[in-house]
Amino acid sequence: MHRTKVKVVADALDANNTIARANREDFDRHGVAVVNLMSAPGAGKTRLLERALASLDGVRAGVLEGDVAGSFDADRLSLLHIPVVQLNTGAGFGGECHLDANMVRSAIPSLPLADLDLLVIENVGNLVCPAEFRVGEDARIMVCSVTEGEDKPLKYPLMFRACELVVINKIDLLPHLDIDLERLLSNLDAVHPGVRRMLVSARTGEGVDELAAWLAEVPGRVRAAA
Amino acid sequence: MHRTKVKVVADALDANNTIARANREDFDRHGVAVVNLMSAPGAGKTRLLERALASLDGVRAGVLEGDVAGSFDADRLSLLHIPVVQLNTGAGFGGECHLDANMVRSAIPSLPLADLDLLVIENVGNLVCPAEFRVGEDARIMVCSVTEGEDKPLKYPLMFRACELVVINKIDLLPHLDIDLERLLSNLDAVHPGVRRMLVSARTGEGVDELAAWLAEVPGRVRAAA
Repeated sequence: MHRTKVKVVADALDANNTIARANREDFDRHGVAVVNLMSAPGAGKTRLLERALASLDGVRAGVLEGDVAGSFDADRLSLLHIPVVQLNTGAGFGGECHLDANMVRSAIPSLPLADLDLLVIENVGNLVCPAEFRVGEDARIMVCSVTEGEDKPLKYPLMFRACELVVINKIDLLPHLDIDLERLLSNLDAVHPGVRRMLVSARTGEGVDELAAWLAEVPGRVRAAA
Repeated sequence: MHRTKVKVVADALDANNTIARANREDFDRHGVAVVNLMSAPGAGKTRLLERALASLDGVRAGVLEGDVAGSFDADRLSLLHIPVVQLNTGAGFGGECHLDANMVRSAIPSLPLADLDLLVIENVGNLVCPAEFRVGEDARIMVCSVTEGEDKPLKYPLMFRACELVVINKIDLLPHLDIDLERLLSNLDAVHPGVRRMLVSARTGEGVDELAAWLAEVPGRVRAAA
């Protein structure tokens, strides 16, 4: 039984990866670099994007917003006057807890790829399944709020391993929390040694320039690797 | 295609509900009331349990801990000298993002049901799938941290609808956040009108007595309903 279950899951992930490659070919053909942005619910992905994308000079950015229901984040990001497309995962039952390659594929016709250098895909808030499903991205960022505690890398190891950048957000709250930041960082090193990390506050803006610079460099890095 | 997918999901949920009923019969036979405790990662479920279960006079409580990996929360709760059983969902691939009835069923032989009045099942941190899978519980609590923002009830409506009690945690941080608490509460009323709610801080202990009293009353309510 267990073996069968794993086999079925492996098949589903194979099928997902095939569609993810097709997405990536479409993005590459238009010269669009793609970042998959993941975190737990309420870690501050949207607010970080509001701040970071506003200061991306010379890079034409767009956002694909993934949510179970509603278009609250898409509405906020539209105020930046950039292309934003909403993808809802809530059809059929309680909702999908992640974006998969097929959902992203369904949104591609709505995206103005010819007018973009960078597409940020804001995933559904969840520390498990989004890490399992590639969607055709070039890079993955995960956002971890200091309010979530020191233990999250150890409890959700795949998420912290499956990314090129870990953004540790809400550092303005550190004086009001019991969290041991050094222990959070050493737990991160235990599951993903040496991964690039940034300490930021989307609220105060501290560290957001560094994130904006990282995002601005993604299209160049993707072109250089092609 | 869409219809087929929904059919498969419906079958899986039917199978889950059948096993959940078997779990509930086992719990009922031993006179154990069961609470399914759900939240996003890092909302403070474990710290709330540390505080609330420590003050549960006259109720014999135990905990079934659900995590993708590790036994960090189980180790913490074991210090209360109550029965704690760890269930890891990480086997096979990146890990399951929720507990289902079959996983809970597999843990029942490890639980000292004859010695318990109340079993709290601490689910995997996730605001989507845990709400879709009954595990044999009598009541459901969801914990929402004020750090997660006002919009979570609207973005994850099933989770906020599928519970009898919403615990709004980390209220000690309110002076340091931009969140509008009244808007969070009105968003909650929009998706689950009139649901019982408590404002608490697991850190300072504020409001935890009210949660402990609610938990202490669950076994009596279950017996009265039987």
